[in-house]
Parts: sequence; structure tokens; C-alpha cells
Amino acid sequence: MKEIQGGICAANGFSAGAVHSGIRKSRTKEDLALIVSSSPCDCAAVYTRNQVKADPLLVTKQHLADHRAQAIIVNSGNANACARNGHAHAVRACQAAAAHLGLDPQDVLVASTGVIGVELPIDRIEAAIPSIQLSKENNDLCARAILTTDTKEKVVAVTFTIDQTTCTLGGIAKGSGMIHPNMGTMLAFLTTDCAIDAQLLQTLLVRQTQVTFNRVSVDGDTSTNDMCIVMANGEAHNPKIVTEGEQSAVFEEALHYVMEALAKMIAADGEGAGRLMTCTVTNAADEHTAETLAMSICSSSLVKAAMFGADANWGRVLCAMGYSGAAFDPSTVSVRFASQVGVITVCEQGKGLVFDETLAKEILSQDAVEIIADLHQGTAQASCWGCDLTYDYVKINGDYRT
Amino acid sequence: MKEIQGGICAANGFSAGAVHSGIRKSRTKEDLALIVSSSPCDCAAVYTRNQVKADPLLVTKQHLADHRAQAIIVNSGNANACARNGHAHAVRACQAAAAHLGLDPQDVLVASTGVIGVELPIDRIEAAIPSIQLSKENNDLCARAILTTDTKEKVVAVTFTIDQTTCTLGGIAKGSGMIHPNMGTMLAFLTTDCAIDAQLLQTLLVRQTQVTFNRVSVDGDTSTNDMCIVMANGEAHNPKIVTEGEQSAVFEEALHYVMEALAKMIAADGEGAGRLMTCTVTNAADEHTAETLAMSICSSSLVKAAMFGADANWGRVLCAMGYSGAAFDPSTVSVRFASQVGVITVCEQGKGLVFDETLAKEILSQDAVEIIADLHQGTAQASCWGCDLTYDYVKINGDYRT
Repeated sequence: MKEIQGGICAANGFSAGAVHSGIRKSRTKEDLALIVSSSPCDCAAVYTRNQVKADPLLVTKQHLADHRAQAIIVNSGNANACARNGHAHAVRACQAAAAHLGLDPQDVLVASTGVIGVELPIDRIEAAIPSIQLSKENNDLCARAILTTDTKEKVVAVTFTIDQTTCTLGGIAKGSGMIHPNMGTMLAFLTTDCAIDAQLLQTLLVRQTQVTFNRVSVDGDTSTNDMCIVMANGEAHNPKIVTEGEQSAVFEEALHYVMEALAKMIAADGEGAGRLMTCTVTNAADEHTAETLAMSICSSSLVKAAMFGADANWGRVLCAMGYSGAAFDPSTVSVRFASQVGVITVCEQGKGLVFDETLAKEILSQDAVEIIADLHQGTAQASCWGCDLTYDYVKINGDYRT
Repeated sequence: MKEIQGGICAANGFSAGAVHSGIRKSRTKEDLALIVSSSPCDCAAVYTRNQVKADPLLVTKQHLADHRAQAIIVNSGNANACARNGHAHAVRACQAAAAHLGLDPQDVLVASTGVIGVELPIDRIEAAIPSIQLSKENNDLCARAILTTDTKEKVVAVTFTIDQTTCTLGGIAKGSGMIHPNMGTMLAFLTTDCAIDAQLLQTLLVRQTQVTFNRVSVDGDTSTNDMCIVMANGEAHNPKIVTEGEQSAVFEEALHYVMEALAKMIAADGEGAGRLMTCTVTNAADEHTAETLAMSICSSSLVKAAMFGADANWGRVLCAMGYSGAAFDPSTVSVRFASQVGVITVCEQGKGLVFDETLAKEILSQDAVEIIADLHQGTAQASCWGCDLTYDYVKINGDYRT
């Protein structure tokens, strides 16, 4: 497996385009993107578990009843959730894209992200779609068009070999606010030229979502619009993968790599984030326990605020583990803080150690920091990703709509 | 029932005192408080459900095995949680208070609040206890001594009549950070001269905790040290209440009043809080559903940040309801914002209305605001209390230890 450039346009047969349709006021930022395959794709998707589901998500789900699609139309600036005429507008977006591409509307998927509760200006979207020009060079434009309060494009692609055939898998994502497990946890679009059966693709996607996107927490809020879609057009011409085995394992490794990379980019670029915070629980009795404890640390406002201040306040780490609901013995826990600068142990057997505060501060002042809780109770481990809680998170969210 | 002054010293037979023992550096703030009854009390208590429990809590639990006690020693500035010699130090605090008061150490309860993981300076506590002077006038001093990052004392007391006898119930509390359900949710001490059986008192305390303290959320973090203790010395000389009935209902009403008042004071004075936020869910199928939805709204970082900005971003309210885990139909929900300035409806039947943004801003700019979600699905309702998420929360918690 090798990392390459090109994101969602890296795989054979995929192209993309984006324009400014006028949903956003700023004319310097594209707000409408189109991702297209030159041939029909086997598709898989995961969606938010929020009971309040945005209409584009429901329309996409309908259109994927046959596990086939060929294009995705995405807008930012408006979530089309809890909004008037939401369903009709999501359908019209698919119809307009289908007309532009000469496809059946049933083969177009739709996603939206932005403010909740405001009617989607579908006229602007319909007017803008015919002007979207598709190209293999447009990945970055497309990756930017789907962002909201994100500050960076999130792009990754890899090549891998299936039965001596080189295949490619790439993806883009948007994250930022309302980021907390329970599904795609944001918008992510993945494209591959690997030939793989849609049902198998779905199994692998669900499994990898659990250990990548569902292990990210920015603010504990699970959005109404989260989804992750994978499109596989088979244009690498490998023998189609239809069952789990050696070949699917190679594909799944690539899928894991791309999804984990996007998940970490989302965490690092959480709303107002100053640092990427990785929370790792090691030597747990089982992986579920490790994951539950790591997510609880990662989601604690007090831990996140301490990371903002580069404050080695490990008591909050133990406290967050304690209310996670997972069973563990606090009296055997060690806590370490780590970054590129070094590692420091601050707690052993559940009790505080005297430690070098200056070194701890330096370790925690880096762009990427890790909190490691070692349970000494088994051999399982899990890592989750989040970010610090900053003044800017409050600022961005104190006045998001205006 | 009538509200009166005097807090924990209001009831017959209770007195209190507080001193600066040196746990905190600032000599202008007392950090050690003692609450004493002139006769043995029937007692009840609830504790944090955090698996990581502070040692003073465990010692208090042991001392309450017989449901009897006569004094409480409390320090702020150090939680004595995950700290070396924690159990021994909590026992020594009880022993020192018992020696000063001429009591059995088993009849002294102990509580601590402050930073986790630092060894308690028990020598200073032992040295300071003999200098604590008890008086009926010391409620406010005592209420201040138990505060950490709280900005205001939390005090309330009421009188009520049991069998023509006037009884008194008063309480003090500390809240601020790490405030989220699952028990006393903070430190609260209640005293009454009403004669009431300890087992019945425990039943009423558990029931009222669920609808008062457990409906407060400041930051989603459940502390290691939370507890709420009620002491009843019977010095009002009413016929002792031993079973549920008319008299226990009068007592429970007073208990509810005192606990709800303290709960709201804790929410309003949450770390960095600018406003008290009441989240009310009405016309739900049952109270549990209403409570789950209201707590989810109240705990959402995005809702809390919107309240900081006085931004009528009701989509986040629906979003938080959607991921609460409670079953409801989003398509029948109305959302209103209210305060002393007025009420505005911003969403009906799950869809956004066009509304007067200027009026909404004015309504949400008050010190106390209410978010009302009307489900139109039944007759049950519940209110929860929280506060906005502010720059100051991040500031306080970015560098709490130093």
C-alpha cells in the first residue's frame, strides 16, 4: 500500500467539479460539489444514528436501495435538515445533477451540510449545476467546497494490489462541529476503482467506521446529516472481490488507512481546535472496554480544556474513565502523557506521582498530544481522537448562524 | 412552607464554623468547615456513581452504615481523590473533628472538594480543627468555605409544619465544574430538626435527587467526590415520621424546595456561566422521555455555546433531542425560547419558522433563559438546568491547577 495524491479523483474513472452556487454569501468559497464515476458503482454507506435525520440522507438511502449509484451532489452552507420542503429539494438536487450528467436520478446521491432549519435555496443549486465542469484535477476544489467551519481540506488516497492488479482508493471528508460517534460522524466520500461486491463493501465499511470515524469526538454532538459513502466502479479490472478472504483483507487494510487518516484529520481540525488529542487505553480486558474508556476521556470537556492549557491534570482523565460506564479497576491504572517531545508518567496504581511539571507542560504544548491510560488488566487496546476545547470553539459556536 | 434565612444553621440544634487551614494558598478564603448537631441525627446520603470514588466518600459511607451521625468535616482546595494515603487522611480528619467535639469518630462524616490526585495536607487540617468555633451565625462562612471555583454561596432554608409543630430544613451546596447527573452531583449538606426515620429519609432523598440535582448539567463531567448528606436531629420534637403518608409528603415538599433551589443555584453558577439555562420538555409520552430529552439539550456544547451568543439556533436543540436515545417523533415538535422579556416560537411541527431575530436575541440576552420543546405527544414534562458555555469556562479549566 502506498499513499498517493488525487483524493477522490485518484481512482480510474472518477472525476469531480465544484462551483459557487450562492448558498454561501462569500463568493470566494465554492459551496456545491459533484463527484462522478464514468461507470455505475457498487456502493456502501453509513448514516447518522441521530433520530432527527436530514432529508438528503433519507433520499440517498432510498437511492441506495439497489446498492448502485454513479454520482454524488453535495452542498455546504445549508444542512437541509428540519427545513421546509426538505425532501422535495433533496430530490430536485438529484434530478438536476442527473439531467446534467445524463443519468437516472435514482443513481445520484445527495448530501448537505451547514445550518439546520433553513430552507435550501434549491433554485440556486439547479441554476448552478449545469455550470459544474468535471475533471480529474478537481479533487482539491471539491474537498474545499464541502467544508463548513473546517479550516483545512481533508484528502487522502492510496494504491494497493489485488490479484496483481493495482487498485486505488481515495477519499475526502468534512468535519468540524457536531462531531461525535454514532455513524459516519460527518460527511465522507470515498471512491475506488477496485471491483468489489456492494454487500461485502457494506460489511467492511460498517466494521471500519466503528474503529475510525466512530472513534472521533469533537464536541459530543452527533449531527443530523452525518454520512459516509464509498463508491466502487471496478475500473481497475481486478477479479471482483465477493467474499471475505485474502483479497478483501488487502482492500480492508486500504479502507482502514484512508478512513483512519480522514478521522484524524477531522479530529485535528475540530472547531476551534489547537491540537490533535489521541486518547489510548492499553492493556484492557477487551477492546470494547478500551474503546469506551478512551472515548470518555476524549469527550470530557474538562480533559479537553486542560489540553488547551497544556495542563497535566491527569485526575480528570481518571474521573472521565470512572463515569464512562465501562468496568475497570481504578487502583491498577497508570496515566502517561506523550508527544514528539517525550513521555511522562503522572499516575501509577491509581495514585498521583510527583512529576516534572515543566517537562509535562512542554510535552502537552505540541500540536499532537497523546493521553495513555494503561489498565494493566488485559491485552486489548483502542485509540480515539479528539481535540482541545478552546476559546475559538465557544466563539465559533456562540454565533454560528450570523 | 416559608423561606427563611440561616441555611444549615436555621434548624434547632445545628451550628457551624469554618477556618483557613492552609490547604488553599489564599488566606482570605476559608477552606475547612465543620457542621455539628447538638444531638445525634438520623442521616441519609447519596453519592457519585463515578467508579472512581474519592476516599472521604468511602469513609462517610462506612460511618453511615448505622444511618447515624452528628457532624460533618469538609475541606475545599483538595479532593483527596486518587491521592496517596487518601483513606488514612479521611479517617484522620474524622478523628480530629471527633476529638474537638467530644464525639465518636464513627459519628463524624467527611467530604472534600478540589483538585484530584494531590495528597491531602492532613497535618494542616489536624492543626486547624481545634480553632474552629461553632456558632448559629456561621452559615455563610461555612457556605463560602466549601466553594471551589464557584462565585457565590448557595444557601436556602424553609420552615414547614408537621402535626402542628414548626420544623426547619436548610442546606448549602457547592457546584461549579464536573457537574453532571448521576448522584448528589456536587457537595450538598442539608440539616433539619424534623424527626424523621433514617430509612424513610433515604427514600425521599434518593427520589428528590433524581428530579433536582440529577437534572443539572454544567459540563457533562461527573465528579469523583459528589455527595449529598441530610441530617435530621429531631429537635423540633414533632412525632417522628416513620412511614410515607401525609406528614412525609409535607417534609418531602420542603426537601424538594430546598434541593431544587440549590440545584438551580449550582446551574446558574456553573464554571464560567453567564446565564441560567432551563430546558423544559412538555407534552411528552412519559416523564422519563421528557427528562432524557431535556438533559440532552441541557448538556449539548453546541446549544450551550449558542446560549452564550444569545443565538436562537434551535436546530441544535432538535439535533440534541435526536441523539438523546429517547424515542419521540421529530415531526410534531415545537421549540420556543422564553425569558422575562417574552416568548418566541421558532419551530413548529419540526420545521423552522420565519421569526423576529431581534426579539429572539433580546429574549436570549437575559440572565435566565428557557428553552421549551413541546412534543405534542402526551402530558408528561420535565425541566433540567444548566448554563451557557463561555470563554471563561475554557479559561478556568485550561489552567485549573495553577
